[in-house]
Amino acid sequence: MFEFDLDASDGPARAGTWRLPHGEVRTPCFMPVGTQGTVRALSPRDLEACGASLVLANTYHLHVRPGEDVVGSLGGLHRFMGWPRPLLTDSGGFQVFSLEGRRRVSEEGVEFQSHIDGGQRHLTPERAVEIQWALGSDVAMAFDHVVPGSSARQTAEDAAARTLRWLKRGAARFAELAGGAADRQTLVPIVQGGTFPDLRRAALAGVLEAGSWRAVAVGGLSVGESKPLMDRVLEDLEPVLPPALPRYLMGVGFPEDFVSAMARGMDLADCVAPTRMGRNGTAFTDGGPVNIRNARHREDAAPLDPACDCETCTTFSRGYLRHLFAAEELLGLRLLSLHNVRFLIRLAARARDAILAGTFEGWSRAWLARYRSREQA
Amino acid sequence: MFEFDLDASDGPARAGTWRLPHGEVRTPCFMPVGTQGTVRALSPRDLEACGASLVLANTYHLHVRPGEDVVGSLGGLHRFMGWPRPLLTDSGGFQVFSLEGRRRVSEEGVEFQSHIDGGQRHLTPERAVEIQWALGSDVAMAFDHVVPGSSARQTAEDAAARTLRWLKRGAARFAELAGGAADRQTLVPIVQGGTFPDLRRAALAGVLEAGSWRAVAVGGLSVGESKPLMDRVLEDLEPVLPPALPRYLMGVGFPEDFVSAMARGMDLADCVAPTRMGRNGTAFTDGGPVNIRNARHREDAAPLDPACDCETCTTFSRGYLRHLFAAEELLGLRLLSLHNVRFLIRLAARARDAILAGTFEGWSRAWLARYRSREQA
Repeated sequence: MFEFDLDASDGPARAGTWRLPHGEVRTPCFMPVGTQGTVRALSPRDLEACGASLVLANTYHLHVRPGEDVVGSLGGLHRFMGWPRPLLTDSGGFQVFSLEGRRRVSEEGVEFQSHIDGGQRHLTPERAVEIQWALGSDVAMAFDHVVPGSSARQTAEDAAARTLRWLKRGAARFAELAGGAADRQTLVPIVQGGTFPDLRRAALAGVLEAGSWRAVAVGGLSVGESKPLMDRVLEDLEPVLPPALPRYLMGVGFPEDFVSAMARGMDLADCVAPTRMGRNGTAFTDGGPVNIRNARHREDAAPLDPACDCETCTTFSRGYLRHLFAAEELLGLRLLSLHNVRFLIRLAARARDAILAGTFEGWSRAWLARYRSREQA
Repeated sequence: MFEFDLDASDGPARAGTWRLPHGEVRTPCFMPVGTQGTVRALSPRDLEACGASLVLANTYHLHVRPGEDVVGSLGGLHRFMGWPRPLLTDSGGFQVFSLEGRRRVSEEGVEFQSHIDGGQRHLTPERAVEIQWALGSDVAMAFDHVVPGSSARQTAEDAAARTLRWLKRGAARFAELAGGAADRQTLVPIVQGGTFPDLRRAALAGVLEAGSWRAVAVGGLSVGESKPLMDRVLEDLEPVLPPALPRYLMGVGFPEDFVSAMARGMDLADCVAPTRMGRNGTAFTDGGPVNIRNARHREDAAPLDPACDCETCTTFSRGYLRHLFAAEELLGLRLLSLHNVRFLIRLAARARDAILAGTFEGWSRAWLARYRSREQA
């Protein structure tokens, strides 16, 4: 369990297969985000129809509501959500650090005010592991200290060092919980270090020394730094990442960023963009994003994306989708979310095909050029 | 086309088959309401999975947005909505009469202010027919003058007389439009007359004299009058309704009202209740309505309705559904709407089985007793 096979590589880009307790995941893989135990506006059947293989859920959100005890008593997160395939839970690190002004960080962990009931809560590396163990995800993430992309060197260095100390505490608790059940869940460490390549490399070395992992994650990117800076950090880190482990770039998932990340050797990514943008009426297409609210779609009988095989694109016209948004109908939110999730999952599958065929560099370059042309196909 | 076969009757209750251009409809039949060209929160695939055979859309709403010209240029209402099966459009009568203070009724028709852009609009018996012809529904409704259930005799009498004059104007326009295309759409007259049985009988006689119809509708009920009064009106009208025509009771569709209506010889009904109640967190079950927001469902692993075969009941626990409503997740609105629509369609199918078996009276009596017991199964 948790073995990762590297099926092919093409430059830094990689195609692999990751075996998880609830199924296999082909990489590159885009993970839809089910923050509160549901990918907003989509059902498990929709996700299956989209070809989703790994779905992310949110430890912080599920801890404050309904609570991991409730999820546990209802049979664990898979049964709770009605999603029988692999699940990854983040550690809550990113969420609690977003609670600016409502949290206090110490070496012990983070004290914060619940955004639901205002009650005081405490998240530590150990608690984050315990909650995820109770939720029963296939992949648990270590609790990390996230800092903004604009952070100064000292801040980034301190946070990376703390993340490493927290990793060791989390891993110790995980070993106690998992005991003999090594096939149930794996704990994945997160490399921090801000936008400083040497800090990133040092953080990675620390992480790899601290244990024997089945994957490694890169956190604290796409949090305000410039895109070229993110690209540079990844390019610098990639050659020293162990080839045998899948690499998860956290929180990155706009189509162009996802393609850039795959080109830099990343295997897994997640982002709320497809569902959030979908609810705002923005659809991803190879020709760039399309705003379906635009009046030019009023009598447009064409599908949102003629190349797409999703329910939205094979059933409805742009004119109808525009009507749904103009009329503020719930179905519109769902249909655009569905298309965008399918778009990213299909993008990962197309990238995989190109990697297997040895044509990734040309494919990704052409794809990015067309997407950035904003031709709005 | 438009033939109605009476497959069986059991007391006043009837089972039939109505042949419409886009498919056959087995009666009794519950029609989900797609006000703005979408049954709120549900997709056409959901409706198909619910077993829907006839869906209602709203002439007034589609006229003001996006406009029948847009729907027409996108291939007509079936293609617009992605619903390939039969559609019924109401005439807009009920909606414009609901625009209290924003409409002026004359013999010519109704002038009203659009609730979308505030612009002046004019709906007449002829326009209502023209709009529905452009939409391309299987079944069009004549434009009627609706009055509240509490209306005095003179008001009800005047409105019924006007409805009959408007029917003749609408039918004349319909004959011009339909010409040789008698297989495309049928126009259905509406019997008004308030809560006065003799006015209802007179209105029916007038309607039947005015043309050769393929169905007849009973309007202006479930608009504020008491339930016993509605039952009495139906009981008085039923013996004089032509057995060869399907009877559509407009706007009635809470489960207990629907069963009462079937017991009084009605074949078709529609109501926004299943979707509106669903969005409020209320689910229909044989044991009465269930409020899924209630804290007692917090850790309830049971399905919403153990007897139901819908996606919601076969996939999710009450505890999860409660979580979706507590977390204000869109999926909750959809899953309860889906269940409620399936519940009413299944209720019609169960009634049909009982009618075919000659056991309707006992079945309906037992069903109503259990539903009203509010055991909240």
